[in-house]
Amino acid sequence: MKFSINRASFVKELNNVSRAISSKTTIPILTGLKIVAAENGLTLTGSNADISIETLIHTDDADNQLDIEDTGAIVLPARFFSEIVKRLPTDTMTLNVVDGFQTEITSGTASFTINGLDANNYPHLPEIDTTDSITLSGDVFKEIIRQTVIAVSTQESRPILTGVHFILDGDQFMAVATDSHRLSQRKVALPAPTSETYDVIIPGKSLTELSKMIGEDNPDVEMRLSENQVLFLLGDLSFYSRLLEGNYPDTSRLIPKDGDTTVDFNAPELLAAIERASLLSHESRNNVVKLTLKPSDGAVTIFGNSPDVGNVEEELESQNLTGNDLEISFNPDYMKDALRSFGQTEIKVSFTSALRPFTLVPTEDTENFIQLITPVRTF
Amino acid sequence: MKFSINRASFVKELNNVSRAISSKTTIPILTGLKIVAAENGLTLTGSNADISIETLIHTDDADNQLDIEDTGAIVLPARFFSEIVKRLPTDTMTLNVVDGFQTEITSGTASFTINGLDANNYPHLPEIDTTDSITLSGDVFKEIIRQTVIAVSTQESRPILTGVHFILDGDQFMAVATDSHRLSQRKVALPAPTSETYDVIIPGKSLTELSKMIGEDNPDVEMRLSENQVLFLLGDLSFYSRLLEGNYPDTSRLIPKDGDTTVDFNAPELLAAIERASLLSHESRNNVVKLTLKPSDGAVTIFGNSPDVGNVEEELESQNLTGNDLEISFNPDYMKDALRSFGQTEIKVSFTSALRPFTLVPTEDTENFIQLITPVRTF
Repeated sequence: MKFSINRASFVKELNNVSRAISSKTTIPILTGLKIVAAENGLTLTGSNADISIETLIHTDDADNQLDIEDTGAIVLPARFFSEIVKRLPTDTMTLNVVDGFQTEITSGTASFTINGLDANNYPHLPEIDTTDSITLSGDVFKEIIRQTVIAVSTQESRPILTGVHFILDGDQFMAVATDSHRLSQRKVALPAPTSETYDVIIPGKSLTELSKMIGEDNPDVEMRLSENQVLFLLGDLSFYSRLLEGNYPDTSRLIPKDGDTTVDFNAPELLAAIERASLLSHESRNNVVKLTLKPSDGAVTIFGNSPDVGNVEEELESQNLTGNDLEISFNPDYMKDALRSFGQTEIKVSFTSALRPFTLVPTEDTENFIQLITPVRTF
Repeated sequence: MKFSINRASFVKELNNVSRAISSKTTIPILTGLKIVAAENGLTLTGSNADISIETLIHTDDADNQLDIEDTGAIVLPARFFSEIVKRLPTDTMTLNVVDGFQTEITSGTASFTINGLDANNYPHLPEIDTTDSITLSGDVFKEIIRQTVIAVSTQESRPILTGVHFILDGDQFMAVATDSHRLSQRKVALPAPTSETYDVIIPGKSLTELSKMIGEDNPDVEMRLSENQVLFLLGDLSFYSRLLEGNYPDTSRLIPKDGDTTVDFNAPELLAAIERASLLSHESRNNVVKLTLKPSDGAVTIFGNSPDVGNVEEELESQNLTGNDLEISFNPDYMKDALRSFGQTEIKVSFTSALRPFTLVPTEDTENFIQLITPVRTF
């Protein structure tokens, strides 16, 4: 194998593929980057137990300055190879497998020789044989991920809750995540209805990595599902993730229908107040803040307290406060995550009672996006 | 004590003073920030075992919006108080010591109550009774610090080497640091000669903190020395550091007078090549790179090697290569620190032999700035 290439083009795709490569893996060859040189271009592959990323650098794109002299394949130590490539002295580089798996990397007067591995020993990528695919706008998909992954569980005790539940039915796409203390649910209408119904659970970590790769270059995301794998296509990039096996709990019954006490806030203003109150709650053993709502006085007040350090009290600006008086305590960190997911909007918060979950929805669109938080009993 | 103040003015000085405050201290009150409200303004003080910083916020500067209602003093938990102040909702804040040492911080509708400490228990700052002072341009002083602290020892086995040796004699100011493997020495002419001769050792860590505070607001640095303390005055800021006790080794005899092999490099180009070579040396047990100089061929080549990973070889661009052929090995990390201290300049490197220290100086000014590195024996 021998080729020369524009270094910036190579580094860009190397960075993409490297997202899937971990130095902490039990399969040594997966710490490597697989490079395959063929007539039509260069394929880079990186993988770990959960995700695999593959990208093609085209020969016929002049910007790549890709000149393939000998086709072939090699696996190179990813982290180390990356550092070399990023520090090479000139704009182009040549890679040449010289002797067995010894690989020479040259650029200007600098010449590196590093030990590679046999590409035949690199695992095969999963095969997704379906041609049925769903295409979504990258922006929308990124938003769905951002709004739901916050509620994914980080604990492996119930592995199924470390994923986001995707349900596709007709032209409806619903994503739900819950760690059993809070829940995020987002619905969007698909541009074109799917021919089949899908019900899958995608690991939250895979979605977080995927969302980092959705950018200006990749306006659309195409999703293809098989029994235990999902493939996302972003232009020339293929992103594979395993699916989580098992049945996701029925979350629809968790969401209360009506609220006894409801109130509207500006999301960033409420977030700032929660951040202040959490300064105190973080210093105390049980991390809770208290909210009192008094529709009769039109007053909403937040309290934070730490026996060692002190306390805070703040009257909040709110609109449309109606219903019964209520005193409720909750983990401010869940509230912060939820509020950040709304961005710069007005939200409606609906409470049932001091011990029942409460919900947050955008006042402009109360049907398609909901955050739910379970309160904490403090008495 | 009660005052109200513009929050941005307060935060700026709070950040300055906080540099001296550590949460890891054996004296609990030093985790606190001392605030003293007097007629002329607000004095903030922070301190740890080594350095103390004090600053005055003037009442008569209208930008501060400082209104002192009751004079007095308090010590507040620094880290926590800082976080509160930075998150307050409005542009102004009021601080009020209400009951014993309980302190109320209000801004808009938010009200914090935190537990303070008696300011009478806060240690007194060192007294510097001299009026003799040396004034230097902030830019020059910052450069002196940057160029010398890199060679300060980080090991406490020889505490004296953790400091920078300052010698002031007449209109000459010399700063030297060495960790016994390398040495940095910088000389500058003082704008006005000192009346006395000073010979002091200032902890490298103190100088690093000090240099962060020299900025656009503080064009000049005034230095006052006492027997075991130094005071730097930067506008309204007072920065105190203890001095290191003991005799600094005589470093003048370490610097070789002539070189047998000399060569000129562009500092950033050489730095980039050393960074490439160190990628390999960092993977090997003994972190060394090798340089071969062949004046007969006009060639300088650098080598890096790791038995596990591979090797690198690069021919370097150089000028004015003269003297004997030489092969020399050294720690590339020392070389990187030294080269960074030169910035975008041409440098002259002078070698004596493979086992004797070599020196780097700017080709434009060979007298006032020198970096010295001891090679590593590899045979």
